[in-house]
Amino acid sequence: MRAITISEPGGPEALVWTEVPDPEPGPGEVIVEVRASGVNRADLLQRQGHYPPPPGAPAYPGLECSGVIRAIGPEVTGWQVGQEVCALLAGGGYAERVAVPAGQLLPVPAGVDLVEAAALPEVACTVWSNVVALGRLAKGETLLLHGGGSGIGTFAIQLGVALGATVVVTARAAKHDRLRELGAAHTIDYREQDFVEEVRRVTDGRGADLILDIVGAAYLPRNVAALATGGRLVVIGLQGGRKGELDLGALLAKRASVAATSLRSRPLAEKAEIVRGVREQVWPLVESGAIRPIVDRLVRMADAEDAHRLVETSDHLGKVLLVR
Amino acid sequence: MRAITISEPGGPEALVWTEVPDPEPGPGEVIVEVRASGVNRADLLQRQGHYPPPPGAPAYPGLECSGVIRAIGPEVTGWQVGQEVCALLAGGGYAERVAVPAGQLLPVPAGVDLVEAAALPEVACTVWSNVVALGRLAKGETLLLHGGGSGIGTFAIQLGVALGATVVVTARAAKHDRLRELGAAHTIDYREQDFVEEVRRVTDGRGADLILDIVGAAYLPRNVAALATGGRLVVIGLQGGRKGELDLGALLAKRASVAATSLRSRPLAEKAEIVRGVREQVWPLVESGAIRPIVDRLVRMADAEDAHRLVETSDHLGKVLLVR
Repeated sequence: MRAITISEPGGPEALVWTEVPDPEPGPGEVIVEVRASGVNRADLLQRQGHYPPPPGAPAYPGLECSGVIRAIGPEVTGWQVGQEVCALLAGGGYAERVAVPAGQLLPVPAGVDLVEAAALPEVACTVWSNVVALGRLAKGETLLLHGGGSGIGTFAIQLGVALGATVVVTARAAKHDRLRELGAAHTIDYREQDFVEEVRRVTDGRGADLILDIVGAAYLPRNVAALATGGRLVVIGLQGGRKGELDLGALLAKRASVAATSLRSRPLAEKAEIVRGVREQVWPLVESGAIRPIVDRLVRMADAEDAHRLVETSDHLGKVLLVR
Repeated sequence: MRAITISEPGGPEALVWTEVPDPEPGPGEVIVEVRASGVNRADLLQRQGHYPPPPGAPAYPGLECSGVIRAIGPEVTGWQVGQEVCALLAGGGYAERVAVPAGQLLPVPAGVDLVEAAALPEVACTVWSNVVALGRLAKGETLLLHGGGSGIGTFAIQLGVALGATVVVTARAAKHDRLRELGAAHTIDYREQDFVEEVRRVTDGRGADLILDIVGAAYLPRNVAALATGGRLVVIGLQGGRKGELDLGALLAKRASVAATSLRSRPLAEKAEIVRGVREQVWPLVESGAIRPIVDRLVRMADAEDAHRLVETSDHLGKVLLVR
């Protein structure tokens, strides 16, 4: 088969569509023939050599895909050859075929086409595990999302609204109209406005009950300042560095918390549990139309280089998908 | 009645046993005639002017007491005049009488005498709310306690063991034997040993699943280093400062969290919920003998000054109680 390989760590040109050995299904795995694969910011880090695949994962980039089951390994029940699926991957989505642990498979939700389904697994699992399972977002609470225009952001807006929360996002001004259409109650231009002040203003001084953050250190003091009493800050990206100052006095006065998580490095059992939660709690919202996959554009998989260039600009809104 | 008042913020000599107006029971409150009152480190801060009572709380120090109900205000059900109780207070325990919201009353556990019962409310509520409700300590996990010889520490050792956890404590070497008798599996002399290294050693490199910390900023980087994957750091004191460096990269790699809480500033409904949890989950452990109140010594309430001097040295083990 062919896959996108990384010739050597570097720029987008390091991504090369080339012949590689076919994957074999191990125990508990199926082989999916890939129809489409989502591009995630983590793929850019992997290309640069900063985010190696975890042990046992495919060497090629790609943390999610959609496609058709073509082979089933030992110890797999409940899935059939020929079935259309999408899947959360530890890697290997940028390829014609990929071996997937069965616990990471999801059916294609009714009403979503097979290509679009590739936009869902990574964002659905990331957002559900952090906003619902860890962050316990409740009806009537305020959810602050940084990077509201990303795949994560556009999904989290819709999930937050579906859960009855008020969603506030930071994003570039050019994206604000679209994000309000998706359900964001308030949009903050992080280049021109102080998000702490804005969040306080729109919450009558209370602050955000839950913050989903991709910036890390550079936003840590301001995120803590923007939290409400009982608030939770969940960090899932470190685009603004890893070491920051934490005001434990402020945290204590607010009875607040800071958590940080990643999805890729989790053991299989935890991923399967998250996928199960997504299937039970999120898929019905997708099938009812409350949450739609937001796809910025489709790029041919062989041109993954172009897709990475686009994602690096952050000019897109929602997901960029590679298709075969 | 008489109470300990703070003549002006300062040293232990600022505590003066003097005549003050009697408290009146407001709606939902009872009047308790105080038999004994626990000394907490927060009382020392209040004496120094650093920890003012929350709005509506009695002006005198004292966050817990035991005694007898002498009057019942409107809207109180389930309690009778003459009943022996202990109580979580927002202040006012260092007095002959105190008005207590009924949701903060607890019966004196069977097998505990009325004086000793004053050693329980604050530590039981603090430890249960942080170790169980927030920290979700599970059987088989490792709990690291800083200040294992304190009232909080001696209670948390016993609760951790009762929940099936392995308890590791830091404390002065002179206290180690007693703390092992209470159930600590490992004792660390924080003056001579590196607690991160010791915790890793005794957990085969895994780290602590839950850390209950009273130091704050000065321990923050090392506490994060000592956490296991999925670990939770809960900060309930800031004896080592409030602003510290947080390595979000380490937190993310471990899928860990840092929370900070206080009990005194919580709204009445949250305190009542904690007291209810303690009564349901902790009181049976006290009544079975699995958890005993650990009392270092009794001091006459009029001599509160001496009790504060003792607590400032940290030479005590368990609680210092003021008795009338």
